[in-house]
Amino acid sequence: MNKKLIIPKHIVTANATDDFLTNSAIEITDGIITRIAQVDEFTMSDYDDNVFRFPSLTLTPGFVQTHIHLCQVLFRGLADDLLLLDWLQQRIFPYEMNHSKESIRASAKLGVHELQTCGTTTLLDMGTINHQEIIFDELINSKMRGFAGKCLMDENELYPTFKEPTADSLKETYELAKSFYGSNNDRIKYAFAPRFVLSCSEELMKESYAMLKDFPGSLYETHASENKGEIEAVRTKHGMENIEYFNSIGVLGENTVLAHCIHVNDDERNLLKSTNTRVSHCPSANLKLGSGIAPIPKYIEENVSVSLGADGAPCNNNLSIFTEMRLAALIQKPLLGPTAMDAKTVFRLATIEGAKALHLEDEIGSIEIGKKADLVLLDLERANQPLLDAPDNVYSAIVYSANKENVKDVMIEGEWVVRDGKSTLYDEKEIVEQGRDELKKLITRV
Amino acid sequence: MNKKLIIPKHIVTANATDDFLTNSAIEITDGIITRIAQVDEFTMSDYDDNVFRFPSLTLTPGFVQTHIHLCQVLFRGLADDLLLLDWLQQRIFPYEMNHSKESIRASAKLGVHELQTCGTTTLLDMGTINHQEIIFDELINSKMRGFAGKCLMDENELYPTFKEPTADSLKETYELAKSFYGSNNDRIKYAFAPRFVLSCSEELMKESYAMLKDFPGSLYETHASENKGEIEAVRTKHGMENIEYFNSIGVLGENTVLAHCIHVNDDERNLLKSTNTRVSHCPSANLKLGSGIAPIPKYIEENVSVSLGADGAPCNNNLSIFTEMRLAALIQKPLLGPTAMDAKTVFRLATIEGAKALHLEDEIGSIEIGKKADLVLLDLERANQPLLDAPDNVYSAIVYSANKENVKDVMIEGEWVVRDGKSTLYDEKEIVEQGRDELKKLITRV
Repeated sequence: MNKKLIIPKHIVTANATDDFLTNSAIEITDGIITRIAQVDEFTMSDYDDNVFRFPSLTLTPGFVQTHIHLCQVLFRGLADDLLLLDWLQQRIFPYEMNHSKESIRASAKLGVHELQTCGTTTLLDMGTINHQEIIFDELINSKMRGFAGKCLMDENELYPTFKEPTADSLKETYELAKSFYGSNNDRIKYAFAPRFVLSCSEELMKESYAMLKDFPGSLYETHASENKGEIEAVRTKHGMENIEYFNSIGVLGENTVLAHCIHVNDDERNLLKSTNTRVSHCPSANLKLGSGIAPIPKYIEENVSVSLGADGAPCNNNLSIFTEMRLAALIQKPLLGPTAMDAKTVFRLATIEGAKALHLEDEIGSIEIGKKADLVLLDLERANQPLLDAPDNVYSAIVYSANKENVKDVMIEGEWVVRDGKSTLYDEKEIVEQGRDELKKLITRV
Repeated sequence: MNKKLIIPKHIVTANATDDFLTNSAIEITDGIITRIAQVDEFTMSDYDDNVFRFPSLTLTPGFVQTHIHLCQVLFRGLADDLLLLDWLQQRIFPYEMNHSKESIRASAKLGVHELQTCGTTTLLDMGTINHQEIIFDELINSKMRGFAGKCLMDENELYPTFKEPTADSLKETYELAKSFYGSNNDRIKYAFAPRFVLSCSEELMKESYAMLKDFPGSLYETHASENKGEIEAVRTKHGMENIEYFNSIGVLGENTVLAHCIHVNDDERNLLKSTNTRVSHCPSANLKLGSGIAPIPKYIEENVSVSLGADGAPCNNNLSIFTEMRLAALIQKPLLGPTAMDAKTVFRLATIEGAKALHLEDEIGSIEIGKKADLVLLDLERANQPLLDAPDNVYSAIVYSANKENVKDVMIEGEWVVRDGKSTLYDEKEIVEQGRDELKKLITRV
């Protein structure tokens, strides 16, 4: 039995009540939070060398991102200031198609390193057509929690060589689900991931959705209503709006996570609500690709599930949850006024609401007894931070001022993956070097 | 004669041509760039111990910010998610009014520390009503380049006790200009700073503008057309639009820098252009206060001077130029498409265009022989960065991916103010501690 005691300065729990604890400590037993109490109620000698004192750090839940493309991390900076169709056709599709096992691994390592050193401990990844097993392998190596699955495409007008026969694609995703569902001591689950309407036949979308029943707790993820040109093309292809189309083929529901959902009419919003479908909000990517500003406050008001994702490194160009939190708050304010999307609301989207989106709210997303010890320690005493530490200032500090420089230590299920700002798993110089080598080789293959 | 030789990996010059140099070095003599050539053309022994090799770092000009409130740095996080009028009335005005010399100094230290460690070497500061001499003193202590001046207010309906008699205000600003204009070996110049139309009589605005002639090279700065409520109040007060009013009283011109300029009609935009008035763009603050998105690409297209500023810490809540560059690019794209405001354009706004706005383009803003050695060294080989280093990737790296963690060394006029990410002038823990103490005292005074 492994016991740890963590004694931070403050705890921001992400619980609905008692959201800010002072002078408190948490006990972790075999990766589970087993006790939360005032510091003086604990007997230090019970924990031997496993008392971790952080008198200047603030403890938060590990952050959750619900839309990530680990296979694109190598392509950061190679596809900037481009129109969406050019972005896919000229850059992303040819690059993704030419991934080798080695380049996928290099990309995944860089992605996980960046996510963890910025405090993200759970992800929903969009996967890759080729070599998806490498993504799983690297998620397991890195102790990451989350969902991933082979990216499915059986149609592609933009880049016709980048697709697979429907049956092959379905067979492979099912086999991958069988292999990796529940792996890493149940920390990894599967996500069926048809890319988006324009790259998927109806059969592919429906049949992959049908596989969910064989893997309870797994998810179905796709992109939706990101770009006006895209939804116009969906209209031409299917004679209806994007979300309406999903509804007509029966793929909406509480296990479906739709990335973006920017251009959505009232009927579609009602469908999202009535089916309990999840929205993954990607504010940086939505701006950078010129897609628009998603009606997030309206979703929240109507109890549609909203969580956050950095999307891919080429359309962001960061994977930090802090960048997304700040932007998620800021971009709504010119439309709705400065009180819209306050810091606490946004912090919850990145923690407990992210967990709920993935049906993991009984395991993670807040600091509660019985939950997994996925935890982040933030240094909010740096010079870039507010000087007071009342609860309101702490939310503001996290959402509006903090970033990677403030992330000191990160734990997944009781194991440290980041100490003092540095990954315990990856050597930064080494993975950058590997990434450069693999990217150069990949570009010669394109 | 002090000679230094800097040998970086790359140089991004911000010149119109030869903007990206490889295998090059720059010689600095007594703070001036005296030679730029291929590395092998230099004789290392000419420089004794003053050869600085940075084989993995990229050299850029020091960044320029044209709208900053150093006196507000203490108030970071204390005024979030509020309406502009509440923001001023309930928080900013009472806090600013209760500044002591000690609290102003603590605020300025934290601000300069943050600006410099994020690569900003020149600023235009909005100043403070009380104790402006402390701001100057701290700018001199910190070797900072730029403009500052007493904030002028002789009217205040929102917070009636926070204003001064017109004559006193004018007298004091003139005396301060006499004392500090040209100080710090001409690195500091004066800025006459009437706060905004609603806090200034016509006499205050006109008479302070008239003082410019006595201090050549000084500037006139104010806020303009930030908020719809504000311009409605200006209309009520003066029967015209904000920029039209400035024109009617003769305060537009090439020495005038207007912060924000979000809600500006065609006639007003023509006035900005015909008078050669400068616009300081503050994208974070414009979002956070819910003010709007300024028509920056239109200004640029029409050759109106545009530069960048982080504004005050309570409405941002950062002072990093990298945060402002990224946002300046991103927020235009949903309106104008993803090719608008490309990375190189934005990089220039933060360097050479900032210098031009301040009439310092012969001294700073680019890396050229004869200019002052205000320089930044960036580590663009970190894991949060693009993996290729062609010129396009470098602009993308700087604008879309970089932030404080990538800033390694910063020099002002040949003197290091940041080494390996740490200020050479300030102890971070100490200034945070001073800031906390002074803020607590200030709050008890409010």
